[in-house]
Amino acid sequence: MQLDLDSFKQKLALRKQLVDELLQECLKEIDGYPPIIHEAMRYAVMNGGKRLRPILVLEGAHLAGGTPENVQALACAVEMIHCYSLVHDDLPAMDDDDLRRGKPTCHIVFGEANAILTGDALLTGAFEVTAGMAGSPTLEPTRLLRVIREIAAAVGSRGMIGGQVIDLEYEDHEIDYPTLQRLHSLKTGELFRASLRSGAILSGIDEAGLAALDDYAHHFGLAFQITDDILDVEGSEEAIGKPVGSDEKNLKTTYPSLFGLDRSYQLAGESVQACLDSLSTFGPEADFLRQLALFILQRES
Amino acid sequence: MQLDLDSFKQKLALRKQLVDELLQECLKEIDGYPPIIHEAMRYAVMNGGKRLRPILVLEGAHLAGGTPENVQALACAVEMIHCYSLVHDDLPAMDDDDLRRGKPTCHIVFGEANAILTGDALLTGAFEVTAGMAGSPTLEPTRLLRVIREIAAAVGSRGMIGGQVIDLEYEDHEIDYPTLQRLHSLKTGELFRASLRSGAILSGIDEAGLAALDDYAHHFGLAFQITDDILDVEGSEEAIGKPVGSDEKNLKTTYPSLFGLDRSYQLAGESVQACLDSLSTFGPEADFLRQLALFILQRES
Repeated sequence: MQLDLDSFKQKLALRKQLVDELLQECLKEIDGYPPIIHEAMRYAVMNGGKRLRPILVLEGAHLAGGTPENVQALACAVEMIHCYSLVHDDLPAMDDDDLRRGKPTCHIVFGEANAILTGDALLTGAFEVTAGMAGSPTLEPTRLLRVIREIAAAVGSRGMIGGQVIDLEYEDHEIDYPTLQRLHSLKTGELFRASLRSGAILSGIDEAGLAALDDYAHHFGLAFQITDDILDVEGSEEAIGKPVGSDEKNLKTTYPSLFGLDRSYQLAGESVQACLDSLSTFGPEADFLRQLALFILQRES
Repeated sequence: MQLDLDSFKQKLALRKQLVDELLQECLKEIDGYPPIIHEAMRYAVMNGGKRLRPILVLEGAHLAGGTPENVQALACAVEMIHCYSLVHDDLPAMDDDDLRRGKPTCHIVFGEANAILTGDALLTGAFEVTAGMAGSPTLEPTRLLRVIREIAAAVGSRGMIGGQVIDLEYEDHEIDYPTLQRLHSLKTGELFRASLRSGAILSGIDEAGLAALDDYAHHFGLAFQITDDILDVEGSEEAIGKPVGSDEKNLKTTYPSLFGLDRSYQLAGESVQACLDSLSTFGPEADFLRQLALFILQRES
C-alpha cells in the first residue's frame, strides 16, 4: 500500500474537525454551575489536539460494520480522558510544563487547584457521557458495560496511570529497555488499544476481528512512541509545539538515546509493517487504518 | 423513635468492619504493577473512615429487598470515590493538610505527584469495579448503567467537584447562606444521595421508594454538615482527628458562625426530623436508617 500524503492529510483533517464538533456538543451537555470549572474543561479539551483516540473509536466501529452515530459519545469520552491525563501530567508536581501545543497549560491559566479539579472532572465526565449512551435503542447494555470496564482498566493504576507512575519514578535517571517498553505500553498504548477496541466492541465485532484490532493498536502505539522520540530530536519546534531536544535536556531515555536515529527509524518501520500485517483479514474497509499507520512514519507533529 | 446509643454504635461498628473487609478484597483485585501506586491506594482507603457512604449503599439495597452481596462492589466503589476526593482535597494546592484522622496525608507519605495519581487511580478504579459487576446473573445491566451515570454525575463538575471549586473560591472570605447551602449540597450531599439511591436502584426499588430515599439522603447530608460544623467548635480534638476551632481560624463560614450554636443545634434537629418523616412509608426495615439519622445528632467524630 502506498500513502498519498496530501490526500490522507485531508481525510485526517476532516475527521479531526468532526471530532472537534462532537466534543463541543458533548461539553455543552455537561456545562453549568460553577462556570469556572466548565470553562477550564473546555480550555483543556478544545486544545488543537490530533484526536487520534476518538478517530480510532470511530474506525473500530466502522470495521465492525457499525455507524459513527452509535459511538460518538464514546469517541468524546476517550478524548476527555486523554485531555485529563495531559492536564494532570503538566502540573507543577508532575512534569511542570507551562506550555502545551504553544498555549499556556491549564494550571497556568486557571491555577493549580482548578487544574487538578479540571482533570478530575474530565475523567468523571467521560464515564458520565459513556454510561449516558445507555438510552439508545440500538445499543446493547452488556457491551456498553464491557467497554466501560475495559476503558477504566486501560487508564487505571495498572494502565495509563501506572505508566505515569513509572515515568516519574525514572525521571532524571536511566531506564532499561524492557521497563521503557512497559512504560510506553501502559502510558500511551493502553488507551490507543481501548479506543479502537471499544468502538469495535460496541458495534458488535467478533472475537477474531477484535484480536486483529488489538494487535494493530499495540503496534500503532509503539510506532507512535518511537516517532515521538524521533521528532524530539529531528522535528521542528513550531510543528511539535515544544523545544526540540527537550528529552535529551531532561535526561530522558528514548529510542534514539538507546539505539541511535537510524535504528529507531528502522524499528518504527517494523512496527508500522506489523500494523499492516495485523489487518490482513480485512478488506478495503481497513484502508484508513492502513494509511494511518503509514502516516505515523511521516508525521511532523 | 428512641436511640439506644450503645447498641446502635455496635451495629454501626459491625457494618464498618464488613465494609473494611470488602474494601480489602476489592483493592486486592486491582493490585499489581507498579507496586507503589497500589500501596498508596491502600493507604488512602484503609484510613479508619466511618464508611457512611458504603453503609448507605447497603441500606438502600436492603430497603429495596435486595441482598448485600449484589451491591458489595458498588459499596466499595463509592468509598473509593470518597477517598479519592479526600486525597485531592488534602493536596498542597488545595486545602494543604498534613494530617487526616491523625495520620499523615497521602502526599506527605508518597509525595505530591503520587498522591495526585493515587486519587486519579481510585476514581478510575471505582468505575472499573462498578462496571465489573456486570458478570453477575442477578444484576440488570440497564440498572447498572443508570447507577454509573448517576454516580458520575453526582461526583462530577456539577456535583462534588463543583462543590470543591466553590469551596476554594470562597476560601478566606465570607460566603452568603444560599451559596453555602449549595456548596454543601454539592460537596457532600450529592455523594450521600447517589450512594443511597444507587444501592436501591440496583436492587429494583420503585420510583416512589426512591423519591423517599432521595429525600432522606438530602436531609441526612444537611444534618451531617451542620453537626460537622458544630464538632469543629465543641468536639474533642482526639475524636475529630484535627484541631478544634480550625474553621474559625481559617475564616470559614459555618452554621455556628452564621447562626450561633443554639440555632445550629436546632437546625440539625430539624434536618434529622425531616429524615424520619421521609421514611414514613417504610416499616421496621428502615429502622437502621432512622437510628442513623438520630445518631448524627450525637456523633463525636
